[in-house]
Amino acid sequence: MPEPLTVAEIARYLGGTVQGDGTTLISGLGTLETAGPDAVTFLANPKYASKVAETSAGAVLMAPGGERYGRTAIEVANPYLGFAKLLTLFYTAPYEPLGIFPGAMMEISATVGEGVTVYPGACIGKNVVVGSRTVIYPGVVLYDNVTIGEECTIHANAVIRESCRVGNRCIIQPGAVIGSDGFGYAPDGSGYYRIPQIGIVVLDDDVEIGANSCVDRAAVEVTRIGRGTKLDNLVQVAHNCEIGEDCMIVSQVGIAGSAKIGNHVTLAGQVGVIGHITVGDNVIVGGQSGVTGSLQPNASYSGSPAIPHKEWLKLSMVLPHIPELRKAVSSMEKRITELEAMLKLTHKES
Amino acid sequence: MPEPLTVAEIARYLGGTVQGDGTTLISGLGTLETAGPDAVTFLANPKYASKVAETSAGAVLMAPGGERYGRTAIEVANPYLGFAKLLTLFYTAPYEPLGIFPGAMMEISATVGEGVTVYPGACIGKNVVVGSRTVIYPGVVLYDNVTIGEECTIHANAVIRESCRVGNRCIIQPGAVIGSDGFGYAPDGSGYYRIPQIGIVVLDDDVEIGANSCVDRAAVEVTRIGRGTKLDNLVQVAHNCEIGEDCMIVSQVGIAGSAKIGNHVTLAGQVGVIGHITVGDNVIVGGQSGVTGSLQPNASYSGSPAIPHKEWLKLSMVLPHIPELRKAVSSMEKRITELEAMLKLTHKES
Amino acid sequence: MPEPLTVAEIARYLGGTVQGDGTTLISGLGTLETAGPDAVTFLANPKYASKVAETSAGAVLMAPGGERYGRTAIEVANPYLGFAKLLTLFYTAPYEPLGIFPGAMMEISATVGEGVTVYPGACIGKNVVVGSRTVIYPGVVLYDNVTIGEECTIHANAVIRESCRVGNRCIIQPGAVIGSDGFGYAPDGSGYYRIPQIGIVVLDDDVEIGANSCVDRAAVEVTRIGRGTKLDNLVQVAHNCEIGEDCMIVSQVGIAGSAKIGNHVTLAGQVGVIGHITVGDNVIVGGQSGVTGSLQPNASYSGSPAIPHKEWLKLSMVLPHIPELRKAVSSMEKRITELEAMLKLTHKES
Repeated sequence: MPEPLTVAEIARYLGGTVQGDGTTLISGLGTLETAGPDAVTFLANPKYASKVAETSAGAVLMAPGGERYGRTAIEVANPYLGFAKLLTLFYTAPYEPLGIFPGAMMEISATVGEGVTVYPGACIGKNVVVGSRTVIYPGVVLYDNVTIGEECTIHANAVIRESCRVGNRCIIQPGAVIGSDGFGYAPDGSGYYRIPQIGIVVLDDDVEIGANSCVDRAAVEVTRIGRGTKLDNLVQVAHNCEIGEDCMIVSQVGIAGSAKIGNHVTLAGQVGVIGHITVGDNVIVGGQSGVTGSLQPNASYSGSPAIPHKEWLKLSMVLPHIPELRKAVSSMEKRITELEAMLKLTHKES
Repeated sequence: MPEPLTVAEIARYLGGTVQGDGTTLISGLGTLETAGPDAVTFLANPKYASKVAETSAGAVLMAPGGERYGRTAIEVANPYLGFAKLLTLFYTAPYEPLGIFPGAMMEISATVGEGVTVYPGACIGKNVVVGSRTVIYPGVVLYDNVTIGEECTIHANAVIRESCRVGNRCIIQPGAVIGSDGFGYAPDGSGYYRIPQIGIVVLDDDVEIGANSCVDRAAVEVTRIGRGTKLDNLVQVAHNCEIGEDCMIVSQVGIAGSAKIGNHVTLAGQVGVIGHITVGDNVIVGGQSGVTGSLQPNASYSGSPAIPHKEWLKLSMVLPHIPELRKAVSSMEKRITELEAMLKLTHKES
Repeated sequence: MPEPLTVAEIARYLGGTVQGDGTTLISGLGTLETAGPDAVTFLANPKYASKVAETSAGAVLMAPGGERYGRTAIEVANPYLGFAKLLTLFYTAPYEPLGIFPGAMMEISATVGEGVTVYPGACIGKNVVVGSRTVIYPGVVLYDNVTIGEECTIHANAVIRESCRVGNRCIIQPGAVIGSDGFGYAPDGSGYYRIPQIGIVVLDDDVEIGANSCVDRAAVEVTRIGRGTKLDNLVQVAHNCEIGEDCMIVSQVGIAGSAKIGNHVTLAGQVGVIGHITVGDNVIVGGQSGVTGSLQPNASYSGSPAIPHKEWLKLSMVLPHIPELRKAVSSMEKRITELEAMLKLTHKES
């Protein structure tokens, strides 16, 4: 449990300003509905502004100048970010290194930095390097020649295959697989000849990989995931992909071989991306979309095949009405035929 | 191998009625085609009723009053359910507790009920509680403070992270991950600030989780899966979801954060559900559909975006004909233009 | 590192013909851009033919009769296949058996062939049979009565459940699950009664299973994957499926229960296949398609629901223009109504 802090101390920690009573003691966090007098809450969405009037919270994180209905406010530029930082402050225990447990299996040639924790049941191969203060949970398997940076967390039963490299402060959720063989085969007339996948995977600093996600090693060079990029659960990244920095790759996305994804790209859940194409910086792709060609930067896309998001919105509004449209066209066709018949008649008559 | 039972004994076990010879000895099960004179089979689908005439089975489970073509019948209200129960009776060995194997890794503060089995290579953290007659397979990792109920089966290499709670009689298939971090980040102007995920996952009684499926822990409260709900393989349930009772969530479904799924809901394979929406009780969603808004109860939906199933059926019939429709519209446009020209002419003429 | 070979020796190894200097020593491979004078490269796609003029490679694998721009060429019928074979020759270390490591957990009744490697942390159940020269990585769990053929590689944390059978030369990537319970339940009026899944999985020779993919055991008989078929990562194969030989099942494909897939079938990424249908030999299904009925052999299909690929191409061209089509139909409707009014007038006038 965290030590209580005053509202003023919290404001100082976040670089914010107190409006109201800075001396209230705060010992936790809550929502606008659930926070009590010793808890801080936040208002990020203006839609809920009126709820501030009814909250029992000891203080409310809000944007400068907001109506505080007599409550104590801590004004910060980004209340949601401030709340996230307080979650860390109040609920995240400081790291305590536990060393290498009996029951951890480690080759003699492996080296670990100071302050690591290696749980029982973890298995660390030859020449592996593990950076300082990194935590390796039970069942993790690091194949030979893997390198892991500092302050990483490798959760239970994750696997990192031979020679792959993980940067600093990376987090790998349980069951994720880094460096599995790329899916590459050469047809040999009857079946398929397996192409050795001799490349590696490189995860840059601050990358996170979700539970049971898979990042395949390159055929001959590097599959790379850029600094700060986050992968959700059950994501597939095929061999030779290059994903930029600060991307959000949501659950069950699949990215085919040699695709290049720019920086600050968001791929929503279940998106599929074809191989050998380029997705520009700051692109957002809507859920379940199929990216079948390169996408220009700074734009949103949806649909399968993916088209500009606004066009897709129009399309998805119209689609359910197509059966009616078809009927309308049929009946119009009849009316035209009738008109044509009448007009011939008219011609004759005239 | 099971002991043989007479047809009469089987009928009594299922609460059914014998038509024909109740003394035949039965020692197994088979299909209408494959069952021999010492096996029982079943007729659930009326389409196959005539096959009863040709089966060699010693007895046929069927609905009361069905034509039995001179065969011995066991009449039960639900022949398919009866068959499933006999599969259990004949082919499922009774549970024999094996205790805690050498090679299992268990913190001293963990407690296990009577009659458990913990295989070698399993790893059980601090203060974990495992209920009676529960089986923990090799490679399973239970983080600190996990609670597991009675008569559960946790298959190999499944991971349950800190403080998550599993009810009684739950089955978790190999590689499933319960309690991985929710995918929550606050943009901080340049990249993303990780929001600590301090909630848990609760699986109620009789829940089953498929192989390599993932259920994320809540950001601050609980991700819950209700009593009797079954998840197939490779399913994603994001943080703060609430799934009701007796749902069937088929393989590769993805459910985004804070979605509420009612009771008795079926989501077919590869369905995607957007976050923060509500799916009503008894809803059925067809395969690959994309649920982009809340769904009213007691109805079926399909498509991406999902619409009422009947509308989608019409739409999917019409869709392949849209290129023709477009051509038809083009040619009608010409005919209208001609008509307009002729009519002006007619007007002038008249 | 491999021993260098002359161009002539390489040509002989591949059954090809040297054009130019056969004495050059080659010690590695590279792309047309990156290969140096001691490396061999290849030209498979005629699009890049002109790059041969600029390559620094010591030799170029190409089809017979191609323009070699003065470079040394090794003519082979299938340059891509040749390159793959050289990757194996130069970069794949010959297998060295390491025996059974301390820390591997193996039941006394299990038997292993000669030359196996079983890493620490692997767990092998009762009566398991492991063929000669097979490698079992850390964290692999083989349940009782599993049979594995010769020269297989079972990567870290893969799980093979009871009684399943794996052929020779199979490769199973990390985290894959073979033989998890099929998703079978009988509604019992209120909830669901679990149907025991008493069948097995059989993987024929030369099958490969991707990371974190799942193949469910049959309800009562066999889920089978035919010789030479390759599954990519995160693929789902449900109970009782039969997949033929030499198929390519790309990442995140889901195949529902009892589906029959022919030989030489390609299912691209994220395809869904409904249960109880048949996909003919040599079928190709495009990415994200939904196969909702049986498919005739020797043809390509796309879309959800899947239709012949050519029709889908036309449809996907037209789809984005449907909003315009709808507008066009609306305005035509008005014009027809006007024409009808005028014509009545004309009639009256005449």
